[in-house]
Amino acid sequence: MLDFKQLARQYKSELLDRVMPFWMQHSIDREYGGYLHCLERDGSVFDTDKFVWMQGREVWMLSKLYNTVHTPDVSEETRAQWLEAAIRGAEFLKTKGHDGALNFYFALDREGNPLVEPYNIFSYTFAVIAFGQLALATGNEEYADISRRTFDIVLSKTDNPKGRWNKAASGARAMKGFALPMILCNVALEIEHLLPQDFLENTIETCIHEVMDVFYRPELGLIVENLTIDNRLSDSMDGRLLNPGHAIEAMWFIMDLGQRLDRPELIERACHIAIAEAEYGWDKEHGGIFYFMDRLGRPLQQLEWDQKLWWVHIETLITMLKGYQLTGNTECLAWFKRVHDYVWSHFVDPEHGEWYGYLNRRGEVLLTLKGGKWKGCFHVPRGLLQCWKMLEELAARPV
Amino acid sequence: MLDFKQLARQYKSELLDRVMPFWMQHSIDREYGGYLHCLERDGSVFDTDKFVWMQGREVWMLSKLYNTVHTPDVSEETRAQWLEAAIRGAEFLKTKGHDGALNFYFALDREGNPLVEPYNIFSYTFAVIAFGQLALATGNEEYADISRRTFDIVLSKTDNPKGRWNKAASGARAMKGFALPMILCNVALEIEHLLPQDFLENTIETCIHEVMDVFYRPELGLIVENLTIDNRLSDSMDGRLLNPGHAIEAMWFIMDLGQRLDRPELIERACHIAIAEAEYGWDKEHGGIFYFMDRLGRPLQQLEWDQKLWWVHIETLITMLKGYQLTGNTECLAWFKRVHDYVWSHFVDPEHGEWYGYLNRRGEVLLTLKGGKWKGCFHVPRGLLQCWKMLEELAARPV
Repeated sequence: MLDFKQLARQYKSELLDRVMPFWMQHSIDREYGGYLHCLERDGSVFDTDKFVWMQGREVWMLSKLYNTVHTPDVSEETRAQWLEAAIRGAEFLKTKGHDGALNFYFALDREGNPLVEPYNIFSYTFAVIAFGQLALATGNEEYADISRRTFDIVLSKTDNPKGRWNKAASGARAMKGFALPMILCNVALEIEHLLPQDFLENTIETCIHEVMDVFYRPELGLIVENLTIDNRLSDSMDGRLLNPGHAIEAMWFIMDLGQRLDRPELIERACHIAIAEAEYGWDKEHGGIFYFMDRLGRPLQQLEWDQKLWWVHIETLITMLKGYQLTGNTECLAWFKRVHDYVWSHFVDPEHGEWYGYLNRRGEVLLTLKGGKWKGCFHVPRGLLQCWKMLEELAARPV
Repeated sequence: MLDFKQLARQYKSELLDRVMPFWMQHSIDREYGGYLHCLERDGSVFDTDKFVWMQGREVWMLSKLYNTVHTPDVSEETRAQWLEAAIRGAEFLKTKGHDGALNFYFALDREGNPLVEPYNIFSYTFAVIAFGQLALATGNEEYADISRRTFDIVLSKTDNPKGRWNKAASGARAMKGFALPMILCNVALEIEHLLPQDFLENTIETCIHEVMDVFYRPELGLIVENLTIDNRLSDSMDGRLLNPGHAIEAMWFIMDLGQRLDRPELIERACHIAIAEAEYGWDKEHGGIFYFMDRLGRPLQQLEWDQKLWWVHIETLITMLKGYQLTGNTECLAWFKRVHDYVWSHFVDPEHGEWYGYLNRRGEVLLTLKGGKWKGCFHVPRGLLQCWKMLEELAARPV
């Protein structure tokens, strides 16, 4: 049996004593606003470019912590610092992050000049949850309005998220991706307080349907990354692609929706899918979960396919713990334990705060960075926060 | 001392007995035209998509072999098969590869329907040399004309190769890449027979200048992958990027131009730069040359940075052997020997034809494919052909 009380302390301390201090100390750009998030192992800045979705994610994370952490051993001063840093990031996003019409650029230079055009829908989705969560923290109507209006733009782009930067030729084999419906599952709940009830419910039902009935394929027992637009499997590089971490992450979004809608059978299904994905994705030789796989075992175009990524593993911790918490499924608990052991012996850096992001197949550190183009103040603290809270609840249950 | 005679036999046999038969047997699509080039280790087709620059490269390679291999032990039947296969590929490219105005798509499905729009300039550059080399083989004026007109389009695109698919925001920190001027060095010589003399000479001078005076940085002793458009180093992810294999490959293009223009000092410089790049890029721990590096040693955004790629190594063999052949520099010969030993013990597949493409840092096979999205009938046979011919010439020198 796991010692939930001790584990709760471990996750809480990692979050509050080692991970958040890393970001608070190193990432806040007091000169130009926003966050410097390309950080080396020890927190030193190795690049000053600002990737817009990372800015949104850090605003969200800080606001979320401010909104949900009310524990006596976190001082009001610390909470005020989180809020102040969130506002600093949001103001930078508001003034520099978009083109004036809430089209969020992909990248800015340190001063906030646009570097890369708004081709990426995830720059928008993370702005939505950033301003939404900060509106909750501050009651600021302007932030709420930015969140709502950006969400409208996201919904208007679901058919062609890349817009004019889409390189797919018209006609032949049009595909759709799993990432957007999956993220929308999470976004919808995040900004529940900003949406009309019936609109929210419609959006949620659409997302659940896409994830659980469309991208989940009973004939495979797995979720695929891409389908044809008429919802068929495609025997092509994109169509064969699996991303087990993505699928497992989506399953805790679904569990959250199952809780919200009081649909235990949805939670049960999400549990079973998550376990199937973990079993499929686990590297039997070296441990850890692969980044990409091909459902027919063919060679991948993703050269990084066999690497072990931080977000895959922390998201699996959330999903498996939530599965156990909500259903009592002991397979989930066993998976939590297995991935916990891998994570704490591979991703956690005993010397400096935050976790390594990229390990090679053998579990050796491939890149020493703690933050970069695709890693910021998001998955690790979000996962630690969730695991801490769930572990505390489990520890408090009567034996 | 190396046994050039034995080595010449080894490279020749690898080309004629193991590599070209692999492509001739497995890649020719007799049903739809063009080439199937996503091939597993044993030659079985794992994907039927057709990447247009790979089609162009195979047309070029087959035409080049037809044009240059006149050795008694290659039968006229084999040569006729090469030519027939080249024409088959060229006809597919001519009818399916572009939009009717010689804008070459990036990818087609097996039947030839466009999948990915013509955003990539290298789909064009390889069409130029494909039709150019085939025009030389056949005397067909239509092919010569396609080559010339496509080359004009390439030159008109040098300022913004990606056209409307360029995601760089206007204004801030505009960059230019090394790949295009580097490839143009090679393209110019390839289609020399199709260009007016003074135009050719101007193009060649511009290319040499860009490679040797602009992208080569004396303060680093290295070639960088990207510069600002006003030719300055940039302390950014793109601006710090080094690709030693790219730089080393460019040096044999420069040596060829040095020979063509009778400028031995250009060849000497290219030799020294190639040696510096090889020393910088060599993995002292596991052997082989890294794919990507950061000139300030910062973490890279390329997750595949530490992998060992086939083309990097075969291109190094060409450059080092050519350096030795043309200048007698024994450091070049030592590098040829070192990389030769690595290649024949890591990339060559003793069971099936063609070479592995992707090894991990330790030199273990990462992907079993012999052809894929970025690997086709090109680098390996081109390198073997060149090395064979150079080794034969070296073997024939009086002792």
